[in-house]
Amino acid sequence: MPMHHHAETEEEKVLAANLAFYEAFRSLDIVRMEAVWLQEDWVRCLHPGWELLLGWEEVQRSWAAIFHSTSQILISISRPVVQIVGETAWVSCLEDVTTAQSDDISSALIETTNIFVRYRGRWLLVHRHTTPLPGKTDSSPDRILQ
Amino acid sequence: MPMHHHAETEEEKVLAANLAFYEAFRSLDIVRMEAVWLQEDWVRCLHPGWELLLGWEEVQRSWAAIFHSTSQILISISRPVVQIVGETAWVSCLEDVTTAQSDDISSALIETTNIFVRYRGRWLLVHRHTTPLPGKTDSSPDRILQ
Repeated sequence: MPMHHHAETEEEKVLAANLAFYEAFRSLDIVRMEAVWLQEDWVRCLHPGWELLLGWEEVQRSWAAIFHSTSQILISISRPVVQIVGETAWVSCLEDVTTAQSDDISSALIETTNIFVRYRGRWLLVHRHTTPLPGKTDSSPDRILQ
Repeated sequence: MPMHHHAETEEEKVLAANLAFYEAFRSLDIVRMEAVWLQEDWVRCLHPGWELLLGWEEVQRSWAAIFHSTSQILISISRPVVQIVGETAWVSCLEDVTTAQSDDISSALIETTNIFVRYRGRWLLVHRHTTPLPGKTDSSPDRILQ
C-alpha cells in the first residue's frame, strides 16, 4: 500500500508524547527527560515507592537521582488508553519495567496515569502517578542468591 | 466578622467536588456515589489493590460491590493540591482510610489522584488513581488475634 501523509489526530499526538516520555526514560538522559515535561511549579510526580513530588524543581531532581543510580532500564508499555478534554489529556498504561541499579536487578508491573497539557502546540507531561501492582513485583534470582 | 457571600473560585468548587466524592464514599450510598461521577464509557478507576476499571459500567459495579461488602468506613484526607486547566482539574490528596469488612478491620494511607471535568457547570469525577503507600498499610490487631 502506498504511504499517505495524513494529519495526525490529537489522540495520536498524545500517544506520541507518551512514547517520547518512555524514550527519554530509557535513554537515562536528563536533558531528554527535561524536554518532555512542562517545567512549572505545579507539576507533580509519584514515582513507585516514593512520596508525591510537588513542582518541577523536585521532579527534575528526582529524575537526575534516578538516572544517576540506574545503570540500565527496560520498559515496555501496554494497553495505553487516552482521553482528551480541551488542552488536557491523560493516558493510562501498564509499564513492564526491569531496572539494574548497582548489583540489583528488579522487575515490576506498574499501573500508570500520565497527564499531559497542550502548550504552544506540544503535549507536555504535567503529572505522573504510578502504582506497582501487588504480587507482580519481583526481585531477581541474583538478588536472592546474594 | 460579618458573613459575606462571595463568588466561589473554581479551585474552591473543585475542592468541594472532591469532598463530595469522599462524603459519598463515607455514606456507602451508591446513589450518592453515582451523582459525583460523569457516567461515560471513558471514565476510569484504579481502586487500591484492583486492576484498572474502564468505563462507567465497570466503575459503577465496583462501587456497588465495595459498598455491599463494607460495613463501615472512616476516611480523612489531607494535603489536597488542585490544578485546573480549562474544563479539567486534578486533585492530589492523601487518604487515611480505615475499613470494616465482615470481621476484618484494616487501615491504609493512600496517595490519590482524582481527575474532574466540568460538565454543565458541575465538576464531576472522571478518573481515580490510588496507591497504597508501602509500610503504611496495617491489619488490625483483631485480625492478628483471630
